[in-house]
Amino acid sequence: MLGSTGSVGQQTLDVVRQFPHHFRVIGLAARQNATLLEEQAREFRAELICCERDDSYLNGRIRERSLRAQLATIEEIASHPDVDIVVVATGGKAGLAPTLAAIRAGKVVALANKEVLVMAGQIVTREAKINGAEIRPVDSEHSAIWQCLWGEDSKRVERLILTASGGAFRDKSLEDLVRATAEDALRHPTWNMGHRITVDSATLFNKGMETIEARWLFDVPFDKIEVLMHRESIIHSLIEFVDGSLKAQLGVPDMRLPIQCALTYPERMPASIPTRLDLSRMGSLNFGKPDLQRFPCLSLVMEAGRSGGTYPAVAAAADEVAVEHFLARRIGFMEIPRAVETSLAAHKPIKDPTLEEVLDADSWARSWAEDWIKAKAL
Amino acid sequence: MLGSTGSVGQQTLDVVRQFPHHFRVIGLAARQNATLLEEQAREFRAELICCERDDSYLNGRIRERSLRAQLATIEEIASHPDVDIVVVATGGKAGLAPTLAAIRAGKVVALANKEVLVMAGQIVTREAKINGAEIRPVDSEHSAIWQCLWGEDSKRVERLILTASGGAFRDKSLEDLVRATAEDALRHPTWNMGHRITVDSATLFNKGMETIEARWLFDVPFDKIEVLMHRESIIHSLIEFVDGSLKAQLGVPDMRLPIQCALTYPERMPASIPTRLDLSRMGSLNFGKPDLQRFPCLSLVMEAGRSGGTYPAVAAAADEVAVEHFLARRIGFMEIPRAVETSLAAHKPIKDPTLEEVLDADSWARSWAEDWIKAKAL
Repeated sequence: MLGSTGSVGQQTLDVVRQFPHHFRVIGLAARQNATLLEEQAREFRAELICCERDDSYLNGRIRERSLRAQLATIEEIASHPDVDIVVVATGGKAGLAPTLAAIRAGKVVALANKEVLVMAGQIVTREAKINGAEIRPVDSEHSAIWQCLWGEDSKRVERLILTASGGAFRDKSLEDLVRATAEDALRHPTWNMGHRITVDSATLFNKGMETIEARWLFDVPFDKIEVLMHRESIIHSLIEFVDGSLKAQLGVPDMRLPIQCALTYPERMPASIPTRLDLSRMGSLNFGKPDLQRFPCLSLVMEAGRSGGTYPAVAAAADEVAVEHFLARRIGFMEIPRAVETSLAAHKPIKDPTLEEVLDADSWARSWAEDWIKAKAL
Repeated sequence: MLGSTGSVGQQTLDVVRQFPHHFRVIGLAARQNATLLEEQAREFRAELICCERDDSYLNGRIRERSLRAQLATIEEIASHPDVDIVVVATGGKAGLAPTLAAIRAGKVVALANKEVLVMAGQIVTREAKINGAEIRPVDSEHSAIWQCLWGEDSKRVERLILTASGGAFRDKSLEDLVRATAEDALRHPTWNMGHRITVDSATLFNKGMETIEARWLFDVPFDKIEVLMHRESIIHSLIEFVDGSLKAQLGVPDMRLPIQCALTYPERMPASIPTRLDLSRMGSLNFGKPDLQRFPCLSLVMEAGRSGGTYPAVAAAADEVAVEHFLARRIGFMEIPRAVETSLAAHKPIKDPTLEEVLDADSWARSWAEDWIKAKAL
């Protein structure tokens, strides 16, 4: 369990808690929340723990024998022989190295980290094929598509249709968006998530990243991937097949459902779900086309995905920098897509990059976006 | 192809026409439309033909050598050694004997006839198991559930949710329904079908029959089957699994899609569909609970299905008689459920009936309903 103290990490442990006889937690890794990590290690009797930023607190607890666990690196946890499934719920590019470690050890990887496939989809899926590793999606949209593909031939897919709630600003005018603040953006209508992803939902950048993930997860060309606005977030995504038949996966918006699916596959286990979906009470489900005028990030990322190479890494890095500055009230909401756009325009791409070249492109884009934002702020 | 000149029969041949290299039509059977049957036999070079009501016309054409085919009984066609798939699109109880013949010959049966499973679901599914025959649904609702079960474990089904457009009278008040005429009933909002099934859609009797069919097709207990009103007929049905995940199958309302699915399974073949489903253009999909006050037929049939034995056969027979009288303007729309209800109340059921006992119950119910309607009309 990599990233155990974050939002997806905690919900994953919630699922594990429901099935004490089915899962054993071997290792837990977190970035910095050592006290919560300690608590989790105690509850789930984890053998290996790793706090990326600072292991000294945990080391002390282990020395004074108040915690039975061993310190390990995140890669050691990801490739440990006792481990069957590695849940990657770390944020950002920090997920790349441990995901590759897990894949090279032939593990099942339950992937909740977007950057892994956005930045290095080609490398990661190639390595997975070579090492017989399996990547299962955790994201609700990709889990929906995955579930709809069970028992189907992926060569018979006509279109993948990713649904998008539209985020906090779906009903705002372009003028409102120009003035929108971080507080406004953090009120997501249907999903309760971390800060960056909530802003990325509001810009639809997140949905664009999901199209790239879908491209790699399901080996479907970009021109077969579409985004459909669906404000209720009940239909998590759909597949259209060549015979005109569509399949959709639906459910209440609760991350624990796709997480459980990724952990228990090919089994479905009875879950104690607080609320079951009742369509007759919902009354209606609504759909529309994405508005690319108000949400240019969507087309920017999809275009970066279509161009491939180092472009998606640049888009993701520039966006991360821009969102940080937006959250710190240094730039406006509609400057996020501009930061992404100028970074992509200035980038000299590499077509089939190595991991190092991807990370270089990431660093380049970060400093380029920083500079661009600073120059704007002056 | 049994019932080749009817609505489903003609649409089945439409599908066959699309894939000339995949299908060979061995035999065609129709009830009475000998001239259309002759035309079909010519186009598809059928070897065996059968006109149930009167073979003399076809016999003449064969004798004068203007038609190359042989006359056969419908059971001979259904069990012919060259036949892989038997499409049963005959209406009413006429489908029972040939379906059983096909099943006993171990064929794949693509079943579009409702009465077969409603009247004799237990017998037919038992025989299919014994003889290694496979029953594939053709009805859009059951095809939806079937498709959603591919790659799934049917023991993990929490609920089957059959959708219902609501028929021609979905928005009418109870008072309007009392005065409704045959002309009103025959204007079905989304599907273009035969007369009886259109009236059965307006009363929701048809949806009740579908719950019984689903019970047998998918071996799911009755208390796990629900009906959901969905006026657009876009989501053809849904499954809820034990983990809270739902799958739905969607598409434009076109019978050729589920027919093709039943014929080409496990393959999906590219279809020349006139219109593809575009949810963003549809805007919204709507849902609601069925109104059992206005549409008592639904609960009557579901209750008959739950009670089992000869009850469903009685309900279907009484309904058929009542619908005939309604179409002939002899009784009102709201007297259809009353005819069904009184027949069920007067019936002495047999718990695990033989086919003969089922057919006896059918005859009894027909004459009982006839008498009841005549007594009312006096």
